[in-house]
Amino acid sequence: MTHAPLITLLTDFGLEDPYVGVMKGVLWRECSEARIVDLTHAIPAYDCRAAAFWIERVFRWFEPGTVHVVVVDPGVGSARRPLSVAAHGQFFVGPDNGILSGVCASDTEARVREIDISRLSLPTPSRTFHGRDVFSPLAARLASGELEFDRVGEVITSLCPPVLLAPVASAHGWRGEVVSVDHFGNALTNLEYPGAGGFEARVAGRRLPIRGTYADAAPSEVCALFGSFGTLEIALREGHAARALGLVAGSAVELCRSE
Amino acid sequence: MTHAPLITLLTDFGLEDPYVGVMKGVLWRECSEARIVDLTHAIPAYDCRAAAFWIERVFRWFEPGTVHVVVVDPGVGSARRPLSVAAHGQFFVGPDNGILSGVCASDTEARVREIDISRLSLPTPSRTFHGRDVFSPLAARLASGELEFDRVGEVITSLCPPVLLAPVASAHGWRGEVVSVDHFGNALTNLEYPGAGGFEARVAGRRLPIRGTYADAAPSEVCALFGSFGTLEIALREGHAARALGLVAGSAVELCRSE
Amino acid sequence: MTHAPLITLLTDFGLEDPYVGVMKGVLWRECSEARIVDLTHAIPAYDCRAAAFWIERVFRWFEPGTVHVVVVDPGVGSARRPLSVAAHGQFFVGPDNGILSGVCASDTEARVREIDISRLSLPTPSRTFHGRDVFSPLAARLASGELEFDRVGEVITSLCPPVLLAPVASAHGWRGEVVSVDHFGNALTNLEYPGAGGFEARVAGRRLPIRGTYADAAPSEVCALFGSFGTLEIALREGHAARALGLVAGSAVELCRSE
Repeated sequence: MTHAPLITLLTDFGLEDPYVGVMKGVLWRECSEARIVDLTHAIPAYDCRAAAFWIERVFRWFEPGTVHVVVVDPGVGSARRPLSVAAHGQFFVGPDNGILSGVCASDTEARVREIDISRLSLPTPSRTFHGRDVFSPLAARLASGELEFDRVGEVITSLCPPVLLAPVASAHGWRGEVVSVDHFGNALTNLEYPGAGGFEARVAGRRLPIRGTYADAAPSEVCALFGSFGTLEIALREGHAARALGLVAGSAVELCRSE
Repeated sequence: MTHAPLITLLTDFGLEDPYVGVMKGVLWRECSEARIVDLTHAIPAYDCRAAAFWIERVFRWFEPGTVHVVVVDPGVGSARRPLSVAAHGQFFVGPDNGILSGVCASDTEARVREIDISRLSLPTPSRTFHGRDVFSPLAARLASGELEFDRVGEVITSLCPPVLLAPVASAHGWRGEVVSVDHFGNALTNLEYPGAGGFEARVAGRRLPIRGTYADAAPSEVCALFGSFGTLEIALREGHAARALGLVAGSAVELCRSE
Repeated sequence: MTHAPLITLLTDFGLEDPYVGVMKGVLWRECSEARIVDLTHAIPAYDCRAAAFWIERVFRWFEPGTVHVVVVDPGVGSARRPLSVAAHGQFFVGPDNGILSGVCASDTEARVREIDISRLSLPTPSRTFHGRDVFSPLAARLASGELEFDRVGEVITSLCPPVLLAPVASAHGWRGEVVSVDHFGNALTNLEYPGAGGFEARVAGRRLPIRGTYADAAPSEVCALFGSFGTLEIALREGHAARALGLVAGSAVELCRSE
């Protein structure tokens, strides 16, 4: 390996407390040369859907062999299984609650194993912080190459169903939903680019034209566009679209052929 | 030394401004190979107690020789002394306002020295940002090994008293207090695990059972548990316990033997 | 080169979404050994003035050759030009909207080139995220030394005017303005230290003495001082000065000789 190992973190832990910092202490204890990227720690608490959306959208920007630690885990310490996934030439670790089901489903060669703590020679994990006690040490060992994927634990063939739903066909196109409202107030959806042609978005009782970029809209104009990760978003030039239209995660959005 | 030096940062500087980023510029100017961990920069402004709580709880997760920069410093630029501490096989730098007194008290071999700026060949520090001008360069030189601890400055034998108080014995157990409310709304206390046996928490006029993990509680049930850093916390499954019970830093919490 | 390359990031992207994390994935794909510093990602959305203020104030804390990625970019995807600047022995990349005009103006030897995407062998950039698709790959290649500055694109001799205005002379001194309110509530201005002598600040109908540091003020006393980056700020000891005086970005502040 020519590059130092790369590990990303995607959680709902926030940055108010040292939770993420301690995970990095553990990661570096096990893999001192790792490069660590915070994807975000501001997934809304317990929002598995937003976590699933983002990990599926962003992993392609990282180099082969990257290890992604994805922890939104309301069931921590219960019977829910800890997973390790090899897919798309990368690794993913996190709980079996649907947040990793999408990255598995999109790679027919994906391999999944349950993390078997007894094989890892780790201290007994706490019951409330598997991000630190299970997922970080495992990720570090996969990243360093000390642990081979096939030795993580038993093969799993059936996962929790995906928490992020695909859009469904509707009379005039596809019906999807808002998945996340970003820092700028853009309402990001699960509707993908359908190819060239005349389309419009229907949301909150309005019909919105599809623009090429934010600056193509008139000032104060609500519009729709296909964002930089390939999905439809509702935007308001230099304003907060979600607040203006009352959109939250789960709000219905339809992508329709223009009439 | 086989690993690159490790430096952690724990402050109340927030992330809105480039204050933390500039500290990293200084750290890397003096120790270009350092690995730097943000523990948190969201300690409430001037809250020395929360800083003391967290540094005492988290340092054990870092490898020997780690240098911790702990700066909550309402007295910056005044007569308060800048400290360097060698304890628990690690180093700590920060102001003498009680935030480092706990890590000293818990190691009978702890050594403490006042940072003598005149020995460090530094530019005259500003009077308002010793995190950048005093603590970061000192930390970097300790981390790189360029500066030996014994050359930092004169030995100090008497420190500010700890700002984080220990629980006190009460009729049925121990009386402590909320020290920090975390990102999830869990109210973290200074009450440590007393060993197995029947206990309950008393807080805000309620008696709460002790659970093993969040998922052991019923939905919407307020409960208590011993968290991943070993202290009692008040939690609400997938909800915000502190808001639900009106708890803030300083709120009384009692850990009692069950009747 | 003895040190690993150093790259800083200053944006209004926030940390709620993985936008910054993905930029790091791109930076490390192109320059795997880079050290990356987050200056801040909490510049208020579209606030070019605050970005200009901070990059001018902080670059001096970084070593020669550092590459600064400065992206507050309401015109992304429109005709506004992407810039690369060599000034003060460092590099700066960002949009031509005035945020880099100050660092150019303060170095008579500054060189500026328009980033010519066709020379960079990059995938077609998205129209909404040039931080990821244009500025990060360019910064990484400048940092690694793979791309020489003179090969970035054509020379530019005329830039957007600076968005950060200089103070103007007034009857008793200089009239400036609040540029940013920091995490502690200090109102930072564009008024620089005029040298020793008797001065006072006039703001919101009040005359404030100039203190040496926060702890020199009486509790609850609003005061003024020259902060750690050399400009006048309005502060309230252990309180939120901007809120107390109703100050926001753009509020007028005058620095006057004491009468």
